Amino acid sequence: MILAIDGMGGDHAPKSVIDGAMLALNELPNLKIKLYGHKEKLNPFLTEHERLEVIHCEEVIEGEDDPARSIRRKKDASMTKMLEAVTDGSADACLSAGNTGALMAGGLFKVGRIEGVSRPALATTLPTIDGQGFLMLDLGANADAKPENIVQYAIMGNIYAKQVRGIEKPRVGLLNIGTEDKKGNELTKSVFGLLKEADLHFIGNVEARDLLNNVADVVVTDGFTGNMVLKSIEGTAGAMMAMLKEAFMSSGKTKIGALLMKNELKKLKTKLDYSEHGGAALFGLQAPVIKAHGSSNARAIYSAIRQAAIMAEHNVTEVIKTKIADSNKQQGD
Amino acid sequence: MILAIDGMGGDHAPKSVIDGAMLALNELPNLKIKLYGHKEKLNPFLTEHERLEVIHCEEVIEGEDDPARSIRRKKDASMTKMLEAVTDGSADACLSAGNTGALMAGGLFKVGRIEGVSRPALATTLPTIDGQGFLMLDLGANADAKPENIVQYAIMGNIYAKQVRGIEKPRVGLLNIGTEDKKGNELTKSVFGLLKEADLHFIGNVEARDLLNNVADVVVTDGFTGNMVLKSIEGTAGAMMAMLKEAFMSSGKTKIGALLMKNELKKLKTKLDYSEHGGAALFGLQAPVIKAHGSSNARAIYSAIRQAAIMAEHNVTEVIKTKIADSNKQQGD
Repeated sequence: MILAIDGMGGDHAPKSVIDGAMLALNELPNLKIKLYGHKEKLNPFLTEHERLEVIHCEEVIEGEDDPARSIRRKKDASMTKMLEAVTDGSADACLSAGNTGALMAGGLFKVGRIEGVSRPALATTLPTIDGQGFLMLDLGANADAKPENIVQYAIMGNIYAKQVRGIEKPRVGLLNIGTEDKKGNELTKSVFGLLKEADLHFIGNVEARDLLNNVADVVVTDGFTGNMVLKSIEGTAGAMMAMLKEAFMSSGKTKIGALLMKNELKKLKTKLDYSEHGGAALFGLQAPVIKAHGSSNARAIYSAIRQAAIMAEHNVTEVIKTKIADSNKQQGD
Repeated sequence: MILAIDGMGGDHAPKSVIDGAMLALNELPNLKIKLYGHKEKLNPFLTEHERLEVIHCEEVIEGEDDPARSIRRKKDASMTKMLEAVTDGSADACLSAGNTGALMAGGLFKVGRIEGVSRPALATTLPTIDGQGFLMLDLGANADAKPENIVQYAIMGNIYAKQVRGIEKPRVGLLNIGTEDKKGNELTKSVFGLLKEADLHFIGNVEARDLLNNVADVVVTDGFTGNMVLKSIEGTAGAMMAMLKEAFMSSGKTKIGALLMKNELKKLKTKLDYSEHGGAALFGLQAPVIKAHGSSNARAIYSAIRQAAIMAEHNVTEVIKTKIADSNKQQGD
């Protein structure tokens, strides 16, 4: 399994990317890494490894670059080259913690869609209280969605939950404003009917309020709503952590309290931590394209690499190809 | 100021409703309350008060009742009668902690829309880290919205922020997937252009991630998204509180830690507490219709009553009437 990695993407690149990559090479004996980036920037953090190849790139796609334009124009950027490695078959999957929009545009234009998938979707595993986690998609690859798009998200999410997370019969839920069958806006009402007929274990509507309580294994929604819900969860968790920290630091008494709670609070933070859950994946492309969080540390990069490796090993792309073809054929009948 | 209250609505009715009403009568000397409900159920919790009138109603609209049908058929229900009091002018505003859908349907059918308002919206004040709070609407009165509807939400929210919250020049933000002007789905892209031209202090797009950081005084969105974001915030805060409680109770050591933190944690809970922020209001009706949270305690009912009283005293309905007429006239020019 050969993984192409953008060494220059992310807030803590290249150090955290390289550290994460070295961790992965040590943990995963079948992994080979092609690392793309500016050698002068990479070298200070690099140590040689027989399964690591470094490819020099002159350019970098920055966070504020226009997504589609930068992918087109910056031909020698680390992200562009990394995507091309997947396209020409010299890598099985790729990963970047850089500009999300550029990675999505590049995934679409360079790696290309699976035949029959009209809209690739961005998916990630979010934590639940019980530690199980659930997959949510689309998180914003497409701001607008048609009912058929959301059904494809469900088919792809279902495959991921089976192949990568090992869930035999994933519970697929539709994010909606109420759990009753007839609830929703025009879009979700249409999707509900289609999902009932699809070859999935569709458990009906799920509410945003219950997401962290492990109500489903796969939750589908349009990209606008998915993005809103993801950021609301992130924002609220962040705000509460900030308030908690303030509360802990407010006096000598509370500081002692914090000390006594230290281990438990660390566990809680780990539970909510992105870095344990891998990155976000673009589903529906010809190869796995993984987006690690911009603020990824080495641990988060490692988890995302592991995710990419599992996706490649379990042939997620091939299974999606088959299932989407089947589903489109059925609809054509 | 005469307030009609549904004595039978909410998880802890009638006790919490009556306790909240008595608290309000003691605090607000200009307030008169008409309390609607079954006298046998109310009596055990009632004490006489010269500004309290109790009106017997045989029926109750239950939480699981069909909204539109129950309002039409249960003619002697406490919620129906309460709404009629506003309609016939014997009360200035009304409040219920009961069936949200029924209250919205009743508000629409019985109290009626302000001329020119095409869709009334559900609004509430949400807490921010700094304690300021912000108004968000629509929270789900309408699952689907047209761009013009959202502009009206902004006009109404702006008036509320000025009249009730005393903010001179409320910052109005559009909930969106990014802060850049051109971000969004088809709906928000259209709304953005209209809000720029409206007579408002429009500060552009705001992200769900930043809501609790006091980025705006009024945040507008369609009812589907608003409902999702509200429930995501509630769900995440609830999940974190549950995890925190578990962490605090896990050993003798952490229990001592919790004891040392007790006051600070209480403050944090109060900050996040609904009961301090009043209920949700239906904007765009001929009179203030307030929905208190179903799980309201006496304190939450009191806050919601206070909110209803301020809305009535500051003529929010009249100002909305004028502004909507002005805005529609401008568009007609």
